Amino acid sequence: MNVNDEKMIPEIVARLEKAWNAADGAGFAQPFAEDADFVNIRADHFKTREVIARGHQGIFDTIYKGSVVRYQMAGVREIAPRVLLVHVNATLQVPAGPFAGTHNSLFTMVLVQNENEWRIAAFHNTLVA
Amino acid sequence: MNVNDEKMIPEIVARLEKAWNAADGAGFAQPFAEDADFVNIRADHFKTREVIARGHQGIFDTIYKGSVVRYQMAGVREIAPRVLLVHVNATLQVPAGPFAGTHNSLFTMVLVQNENEWRIAAFHNTLVA
Repeated sequence: MNVNDEKMIPEIVARLEKAWNAADGAGFAQPFAEDADFVNIRADHFKTREVIARGHQGIFDTIYKGSVVRYQMAGVREIAPRVLLVHVNATLQVPAGPFAGTHNSLFTMVLVQNENEWRIAAFHNTLVA
Repeated sequence: MNVNDEKMIPEIVARLEKAWNAADGAGFAQPFAEDADFVNIRADHFKTREVIARGHQGIFDTIYKGSVVRYQMAGVREIAPRVLLVHVNATLQVPAGPFAGTHNSLFTMVLVQNENEWRIAAFHNTLVA
């Protein structure tokens, strides 16, 4: 992991956060690999960037409308060449609707570098009990 | 991924299942890398094989005493050389206590090969809503 790689991680996390807070499903999915796997807090399992984009746009427009997320890096570890394991704490504030309130979660991301570009290959999120 | 690698994955999953059902914390942790990361359904984050072993022995002896788990492979994908992303569906039956009943979950595992040996580098579990 070189200096550029170290900068890349918070940049990806910041991009996810910014896209969520702009209710931008395609923007949220943009750092994901085309064939990425995504498991949400309900254990729903989504595959491909396109499906991740569509699914997020769906929640941004409905149950999580107007919600604000804050991410905080909890750890980074290189588990193989060009493969990083990243843990992030999330705090989601939902203003109204069936999920109104504050929700804390912890997600694992696996980042993989291909041809100098880092992408999220896998994402798995769990609500803090 | 060669034929031996393909056999290795269900073997690791079967080992986890067998150790859980024998209430064997050290056996459950054995396929993990020494520095593995583990996130459970409460978003508790454990690090190192030793801590994973101890934590599991703790739940096997208390809240999950006498429980029986069944794992079913949900997917395998090679995300980088010698790095596999594995998804597994779990059904846990707890006979008594505060968590008595049946609990379904989906976990993500990241397997990494070092010197011909595959180990679980990361594990993240979420209850099915």
